[in-house]
Amino acid sequence: MKKRVVIVGSGFGGLNCAVGLSHSDCDVVLIDKENHFLFQPLLYQVATAGLSPADIAWPIRSLLRKQKNVTVLMDRVTHIDTAMKTVRHEHGSEPYDALVIATGATHSFFGHDDWEVRSQGLKTLDDATRLRTRVLTAFEEAELTMTDTGRTAWLTFVIVGGGPTGVELAGSLAELSKRTMAAEFRRMDPAQARILLIEATEILSAYPADLREAARHSLHKLGVEVLEKTTVTAVTDDGVEIASGPVRAKNVIWAAGVTASPAATWLSAGHDRSGRVIVDDHCRVPDKEGVFVIGDVAAFSTADGKGLPGVAQVAMQQGRYVARLIEGKERGAFRYKDLGTMATIGRSSAVAVVGGRHFRGFVAWMMWSGLHIWTLLTAQSRILVFVQWAWAYFTFWRGARLITRKP
Amino acid sequence: MKKRVVIVGSGFGGLNCAVGLSHSDCDVVLIDKENHFLFQPLLYQVATAGLSPADIAWPIRSLLRKQKNVTVLMDRVTHIDTAMKTVRHEHGSEPYDALVIATGATHSFFGHDDWEVRSQGLKTLDDATRLRTRVLTAFEEAELTMTDTGRTAWLTFVIVGGGPTGVELAGSLAELSKRTMAAEFRRMDPAQARILLIEATEILSAYPADLREAARHSLHKLGVEVLEKTTVTAVTDDGVEIASGPVRAKNVIWAAGVTASPAATWLSAGHDRSGRVIVDDHCRVPDKEGVFVIGDVAAFSTADGKGLPGVAQVAMQQGRYVARLIEGKERGAFRYKDLGTMATIGRSSAVAVVGGRHFRGFVAWMMWSGLHIWTLLTAQSRILVFVQWAWAYFTFWRGARLITRKP
Repeated sequence: MKKRVVIVGSGFGGLNCAVGLSHSDCDVVLIDKENHFLFQPLLYQVATAGLSPADIAWPIRSLLRKQKNVTVLMDRVTHIDTAMKTVRHEHGSEPYDALVIATGATHSFFGHDDWEVRSQGLKTLDDATRLRTRVLTAFEEAELTMTDTGRTAWLTFVIVGGGPTGVELAGSLAELSKRTMAAEFRRMDPAQARILLIEATEILSAYPADLREAARHSLHKLGVEVLEKTTVTAVTDDGVEIASGPVRAKNVIWAAGVTASPAATWLSAGHDRSGRVIVDDHCRVPDKEGVFVIGDVAAFSTADGKGLPGVAQVAMQQGRYVARLIEGKERGAFRYKDLGTMATIGRSSAVAVVGGRHFRGFVAWMMWSGLHIWTLLTAQSRILVFVQWAWAYFTFWRGARLITRKP
Repeated sequence: MKKRVVIVGSGFGGLNCAVGLSHSDCDVVLIDKENHFLFQPLLYQVATAGLSPADIAWPIRSLLRKQKNVTVLMDRVTHIDTAMKTVRHEHGSEPYDALVIATGATHSFFGHDDWEVRSQGLKTLDDATRLRTRVLTAFEEAELTMTDTGRTAWLTFVIVGGGPTGVELAGSLAELSKRTMAAEFRRMDPAQARILLIEATEILSAYPADLREAARHSLHKLGVEVLEKTTVTAVTDDGVEIASGPVRAKNVIWAAGVTASPAATWLSAGHDRSGRVIVDDHCRVPDKEGVFVIGDVAAFSTADGKGLPGVAQVAMQQGRYVARLIEGKERGAFRYKDLGTMATIGRSSAVAVVGGRHFRGFVAWMMWSGLHIWTLLTAQSRILVFVQWAWAYFTFWRGARLITRKP
């Protein structure tokens, strides 16, 4: 009888595992609560109106339409019975011989649920269009507001968290307000927008010191105020509180903590502080036969005890690795091959570490742009994104400035 | 002192009026509750995943950024005082010398408010993404549903109203299910979707008989069931009721009645049965000095007593005409110049009347495609739409198949 593989989650990890099984003799069921694969590294561009949602997300079933051994189901998983080897979802249940959990991570507000309603995170397409609506509405409200203090509050954007997402959002917001929207308002000047990037340690802490410094310099040139070693102690209705006092802002964007999705609870498995399921060096869950956990929802211990970064590359490589394990083509432990890392700050400005070498400025930005267009999943998206980026390079125009789904 | 012109509504009428005043000595304030101009004729393509929202909508203030005499405000109008000549909106008020109302029309459910919650209309971008989510979710639910009757209900689409929107939606849905999605499902066949187009009189009733017949033939070839001279007597939780009995359907799309926006109430002015403000042959409201009403919200009487059709061309021409009146460059009555009309049924199939001549099939479809790309408002959108249409022509691929903002 054919081996039955159930994959939960169709991000970088789950999708690569399914594709890795394309020439196998397995029956694969891929379950996700969304109908699309999302290219998360470009999500900030949707939030800041540079690209449309459909440019960076594609229906999972159409990506996998030619792989006849895969059935895609859009549904929510409700329960996993590891003794009976069954995954239950809202509309039915799927038995498995091998189960791969790749459900990723979501925001963490460090236990402050009230912060969540007062700020906007960025993990899903819906988050991105909501954030886009909030950002664009803030400028519209500023144009309508008669008092200086009111207008200033609308034009103040606080980004909490200085990782790649926070840095990319800050740079993109600065260009949106100072270049794209210049000359479009009559009663206020959008260039007066204040953009604060608040980080508890250092920005881009995973990068080498010289590139961190280059990023700081680029952000400074764009007019972004970078507050490092600064902790946000409260998110209020009026803005945020930091050690030096309150910052009045109508727009608080959350790019800080991350917590794993609830797979550990489903599996009754051991987990770390962030909720990630503890796996062995084969991505297996101890004492749960046939269960693998990969990507951001897995706590994988490396020999040096440092663990692995929460990046797409890890999830993709683990997805392919687990597919080989299930097929019996692999027996050794998982080894992460670091292909490099990069982040963009704005037009003609990025930082990158590739093969141990450091890149910055225009060169790094061309590498970043080329790699991201290359890795988009459909040829049509590559053309559409290229057209929009080339246009934006010369004119600063951003076409996707739509205020939709107003509250 | 400069003349102050307030325009309410930035559809085809309002935008053309503002642009018509670009070389005038007037100060113009353009108020709309949305931030974007929407190219409504292509809205059905967003609803059926052929195009992205940003391909057919652009921020009003960026379209008008070079026209320094226009201030754009995104706000809701709450009250109009024609004696004091003031428009009040939620954030303030604007005095006027001339007022142009161009707020368009919305759905009419003929007094059945309960029908509205059970069906989905198509007038705004939010309607389009909601309809897209409903259509795509129906196919996902069909894949998850185990019973034949349940699956059939999910795969039955009832479109109420056989005007251009209803016909275009029906054709596009048929191609989506039978071509684009073929081979993407494993547990059911999307080609089994049943698409019913229900019309109380005749489909495309504004078109000549030979083109109506051509449209019927094209729809039939696409597998659409066209029910003419059929009245929907109820929209229920299970579908719709027609004379021959109930039709079980999980998806009811409303493309029938239209009612004007509440401008007549704002103005305390005379209106017709559909709520349209009665205007004279200069688009003026009787006894309201300096007030003009144009487009779908105006009831304009032509010499033959027939009135004008609710199409973009009328609104555009009236917008330009009223701009000339306000500038004092025009004194004569408004005359509508019918430039022709066209509707598309599917790939390589359309009907058109231009200069009294009738066109159908591939020729009409090329005219339709060319004209619509040509009339998009930005060069970038022309390129993006062309790429997506050319792609779809050869592959039937539709990229924007995203289920977002799930209920």
